[in-house]
Amino acid sequence: MRAAVLHEVGKPLVVEDLQVDNPGPREVLVRTVAAGVCHSDYHYMNGSWAGGLPVALGHEASGIVEKVGRDVTYLAPGDHVISCLSVFCGNCRNCLAGKPYTCDDTDSLERQAGEQPRLSLNGRAVRQGFGLAAFAERMLLHENALVKIRSDMPLDRAALIGCAVTTGVGAVIHTSAIEPGSTVAVIGCGGVGLSAIAGAALAGASRIIAIDIHDHKLELAKQFGATEGVNASDADPVEVVLEMTGGGIDYSFEALGLKKTCEQAFAMIRPSGTACVIGMVPQGEMLEIDAAALIDDRRLIGSDMGSNAFRIDIPNFVDFYLNGKLNLDAMISQRVPLERINEAYADMLAGNVARTVITFDGSA
Amino acid sequence: MRAAVLHEVGKPLVVEDLQVDNPGPREVLVRTVAAGVCHSDYHYMNGSWAGGLPVALGHEASGIVEKVGRDVTYLAPGDHVISCLSVFCGNCRNCLAGKPYTCDDTDSLERQAGEQPRLSLNGRAVRQGFGLAAFAERMLLHENALVKIRSDMPLDRAALIGCAVTTGVGAVIHTSAIEPGSTVAVIGCGGVGLSAIAGAALAGASRIIAIDIHDHKLELAKQFGATEGVNASDADPVEVVLEMTGGGIDYSFEALGLKKTCEQAFAMIRPSGTACVIGMVPQGEMLEIDAAALIDDRRLIGSDMGSNAFRIDIPNFVDFYLNGKLNLDAMISQRVPLERINEAYADMLAGNVARTVITFDGSA
Repeated sequence: MRAAVLHEVGKPLVVEDLQVDNPGPREVLVRTVAAGVCHSDYHYMNGSWAGGLPVALGHEASGIVEKVGRDVTYLAPGDHVISCLSVFCGNCRNCLAGKPYTCDDTDSLERQAGEQPRLSLNGRAVRQGFGLAAFAERMLLHENALVKIRSDMPLDRAALIGCAVTTGVGAVIHTSAIEPGSTVAVIGCGGVGLSAIAGAALAGASRIIAIDIHDHKLELAKQFGATEGVNASDADPVEVVLEMTGGGIDYSFEALGLKKTCEQAFAMIRPSGTACVIGMVPQGEMLEIDAAALIDDRRLIGSDMGSNAFRIDIPNFVDFYLNGKLNLDAMISQRVPLERINEAYADMLAGNVARTVITFDGSA
Repeated sequence: MRAAVLHEVGKPLVVEDLQVDNPGPREVLVRTVAAGVCHSDYHYMNGSWAGGLPVALGHEASGIVEKVGRDVTYLAPGDHVISCLSVFCGNCRNCLAGKPYTCDDTDSLERQAGEQPRLSLNGRAVRQGFGLAAFAERMLLHENALVKIRSDMPLDRAALIGCAVTTGVGAVIHTSAIEPGSTVAVIGCGGVGLSAIAGAALAGASRIIAIDIHDHKLELAKQFGATEGVNASDADPVEVVLEMTGGGIDYSFEALGLKKTCEQAFAMIRPSGTACVIGMVPQGEMLEIDAAALIDDRRLIGSDMGSNAFRIDIPNFVDFYLNGKLNLDAMISQRVPLERINEAYADMLAGNVARTVITFDGSA
């Protein structure tokens, strides 16, 4: 099967013909239908996060179950699924405390040393990026990396729920648990940021200030519920937000993964406000946080993929979409085939798109 | 009346004879009985926090109401009271949201420009440190800076509740709202740190690791509920706590106000753990926080005086003491008269004491 593989940091992805093994006892083989192009994979491409190579990337996908292992009871061939990188064991301390997204024992859900690898290229193992490897015609996963969804959900939009929506909406409604009437600022209006905006609208925020350096993204943000937009190229967004709010915003969300914008997110909150970092900041970078500002009960919190329990959350998000409460249509800027994956990343880096979806069914 | 005044940064306090005005309509004149010596005043003495001079310091006190203004209905002469720096208007957005400790309108509770100052020295205004000026024989305060307490509560121990207990216990039970069974580490075992330990014990923590550089304080901490002690002079407390807990503590509390210990507090928490900064870090210092650690839902939060609603909290703390649930006796290392205020600060800086209480009734 064809898959986009990173062989070397700093080099383009290469579409290769990989061997995929048969499902083990609790594994599921999924025919991938759509996969979103998310910035987090790019961290491994440019080396700002380190991981073993070669690796097949992609982690935001939907598909249809093709084959299940002998002990799988949750899924059957033909089921429509979304994959999620928050694979959970269901037995560890974090899973049992309602925090499956920080599962302590995900290693036990991988194939172990000495076993045949799930993916290989000419007999050599290829790692699954984020445990998923979704830029591929097939995904071979533990069943606890999958959630079953309604078959009337369009699978291209379903793919976005696997990462951007779960992460962005979840950061607002779970990690931060904003109250209705809260004021919210979101820095970065890509797929995750737009989802945070949509989450703030769902949760009844009174003001939602979108912040980006592209006017066309600020316009797009309004379709997701933003009430105002700030172009950070024109002025310091911290000063603008402090001025607009008379002293700071209740909740800020950073959806880019940059040191500077994380620090801005903290600097724009009011006393007892919360700054929530959703983006993946390059490994080793230290945020500089004004200690004296903490005195007023300010909070800097990280969000691990929206603090999700994805088997609970994702079916809700599907319903929200189908009931008209969650805009996903406008999040997809373009649909392209796997062969154009490197162009899709170039578009993302240029700020041209909210989300590109790779489609495997010829619908591009 | 006699009061300890800071005239110049870096110089000792001077016990002066101040004039105190008569109560305005909503003001109360209190005869001070006891006042605790807290590190936070010292920030103004050494200049790490800036404020107008001259200033009468002290902010952790108890006393007996002597005289009330014409519009005061909450208190009457003879009432026993604790003063609290979380003066609240009761009308602003934060007060109405259950966060009176971040009241937006405390200025309206002060005397205004053009009015006679509350305190003066030879006709010149003397500022009230933290709005209180408790190292003084009398306190003249807005009634919303006071809470009435049971008259059977010993007033020397009551004084500690005004800052250390409200701040330390509150950071655990309000700001962080730990769950029973949580694991807790507390850095710094002075009055606030011991109170955080006591709060963790009250809230049902399963392990409470006390961290200090003085063995005698680690011993003392056990009287407040610490289950273990770590001497940070002997080893890196982050490594020790990670090792003791197999990957990090659920909640850490910083009760010193130092950049280094704040950073340690964050570095020792587990995924989805919370580091709570209680101490006042010198103005302008930036904490360096590993951005990648935020990914696992870690939280860095500040506590504004234990996120208190002091008129609710303080009577509870008094009851806890009188019912044997909260140890305050062991927190008082010594009682001294006002004239020995500078020696009391020297003892604090040398790490000799948990809390010194200045007494005004000859009970030292």
